[in-house]
Amino acid sequence: MKRLQMFGLLNKDMDHIEKELYRSVQGDDDLLSETSLHLLRAGGKRLRPVFVLMGGKFGNYDLEKLKRIAVPLELIHSASLVHDDVIDDADLRRGEPTVKSKWGDKIAMYTGDYIYAKALIMTSELKNPRIHQILSKAMVEMSIGEMEQIRDFFNSEQSIRHYLRRIRRKTALLIAISCQLGALAADANPEDARLLYNYGYNVGMAFQIRDDLLDLSGTEKQIGKPPGSDMRQGNITLPVIYSLEDDRLRDRLLEELDLIRGGRMEVGRAIDLILSGDGIIRAEELASRYISKALTALDGLPNNKTKRNLRDIAFFVTGRAY
Amino acid sequence: MKRLQMFGLLNKDMDHIEKELYRSVQGDDDLLSETSLHLLRAGGKRLRPVFVLMGGKFGNYDLEKLKRIAVPLELIHSASLVHDDVIDDADLRRGEPTVKSKWGDKIAMYTGDYIYAKALIMTSELKNPRIHQILSKAMVEMSIGEMEQIRDFFNSEQSIRHYLRRIRRKTALLIAISCQLGALAADANPEDARLLYNYGYNVGMAFQIRDDLLDLSGTEKQIGKPPGSDMRQGNITLPVIYSLEDDRLRDRLLEELDLIRGGRMEVGRAIDLILSGDGIIRAEELASRYISKALTALDGLPNNKTKRNLRDIAFFVTGRAY
Repeated sequence: MKRLQMFGLLNKDMDHIEKELYRSVQGDDDLLSETSLHLLRAGGKRLRPVFVLMGGKFGNYDLEKLKRIAVPLELIHSASLVHDDVIDDADLRRGEPTVKSKWGDKIAMYTGDYIYAKALIMTSELKNPRIHQILSKAMVEMSIGEMEQIRDFFNSEQSIRHYLRRIRRKTALLIAISCQLGALAADANPEDARLLYNYGYNVGMAFQIRDDLLDLSGTEKQIGKPPGSDMRQGNITLPVIYSLEDDRLRDRLLEELDLIRGGRMEVGRAIDLILSGDGIIRAEELASRYISKALTALDGLPNNKTKRNLRDIAFFVTGRAY
Repeated sequence: MKRLQMFGLLNKDMDHIEKELYRSVQGDDDLLSETSLHLLRAGGKRLRPVFVLMGGKFGNYDLEKLKRIAVPLELIHSASLVHDDVIDDADLRRGEPTVKSKWGDKIAMYTGDYIYAKALIMTSELKNPRIHQILSKAMVEMSIGEMEQIRDFFNSEQSIRHYLRRIRRKTALLIAISCQLGALAADANPEDARLLYNYGYNVGMAFQIRDDLLDLSGTEKQIGKPPGSDMRQGNITLPVIYSLEDDRLRDRLLEELDLIRGGRMEVGRAIDLILSGDGIIRAEELASRYISKALTALDGLPNNKTKRNLRDIAFFVTGRAY
């Protein structure tokens, strides 16, 4: 996945963020630099930094200040991915070998610990306790979300509420605070910061639902890893839950899930079952409802170019699933 | 290992810290509480909280403030132990099954992540950016130390300097900042805080050398895990490095280390070789030199009961190796 390249204005600043990202994990230890850079160089949309900078546009935009939020947020996200890949036994991420597959679980674990700690150092330079507080709370929620995910592996009885709570913790919260902290660091109006949080939260929910959809309906080239990876790991996502609610599919799908749980790598039949029902379309509908809510949050913000860009991003990052 | 119980004055406050420790990991998620409490309840000397409270005695002692340093420092230490046990494949810690052996690597990894994040929330309540900065820097150093340890597994060519740098990062630094942050949180004289840091650093070095010694010369009952565990994992400690410098031992010891590296669980012969030379006594001498330096740091501090207690602790925590 390539970096978001929609906004001429931010591109120069995002280049700077990219350099700072690489710089932030160098100079301490050769192996840690190598593993961290391998992870960061594999790319990603840099969604969280983009949102931080956009949030900053609602106040006194100062790149030197904002980078101390933007870089740590991308680092925290990246650290969570290295640990995720250990849990999921994932060999590929964004089309590249994972740290876990290249260096093993143990080194992946400490690479994550290191990147988390580097993120914290950088935010502590801001000397703003409220930012630290919001960030560490989000980190706690993320780790709870990860634990819920492990516990819910292959839990075919989980409710939609369950799923939504998990993706809220795993994804939406960090995107929400990216928008919010950008605004706070730029001393924006607190009400604007609150609306930006709501925008980010709803975009984040839609984004994760879309990501989970793509894992079932996308091609390996589109998603950078084999389709059905979530299911193979036992991660029961929204389209699967909807499909299990469908009496015509439930029993056959449960049977397939049992076989996968038993170690069968083939997930094609389970995917075909899901595609034959309305699980995908219902998940798309729910994602759309979140996008709607994100746009409603934008309504309260002052009309400016950034607000229009945020609207575009909302469609862009969630649109590819439809 | 039992909590330090030397100081009537601190016992009541340490009871409070103990309760706060347990409380800090409850209420978020049942499984995370269970794994975290299992870890915390296995005990430990609570050295870092004791040092925080002692540091606080050099300023305006306020338990409510100091606990927001003492609890996080013990949490950070504990989180590093859970991750350590994953790396070391350790089944026992303080005589109890490790989180890793009871729940597996993945749950141990997220238990660590969760406890780290909970530590950060609590310090962020202090609204003191400098404390945050010192803490996050120590966390980076700790993760570098852990990585060095992995890389140096079975590296029989490592120097004493190598070893000292590693234990500085792994242990001494966190103990140093325990003393320092206690003083800073109590608005103590900055020069006193600096001396307390030096004291803690040197006690920490001596403490880790002693711990490494005990692994070779202690009994299973004394150390809460089978003797020679370090060597079995490939962790080359100071007495081993000294023994490898001894021409009468070097070749036979290298041979033993090779067999252990190859998977042999029996370390008795390697231990006997080390005990037959002067590796243990030389390591004891170096530990004593660090204790000496710790006492010199104390000289500069005002004469009071706490200073005398710190002197006692220095002997107590490092004395059992002799």
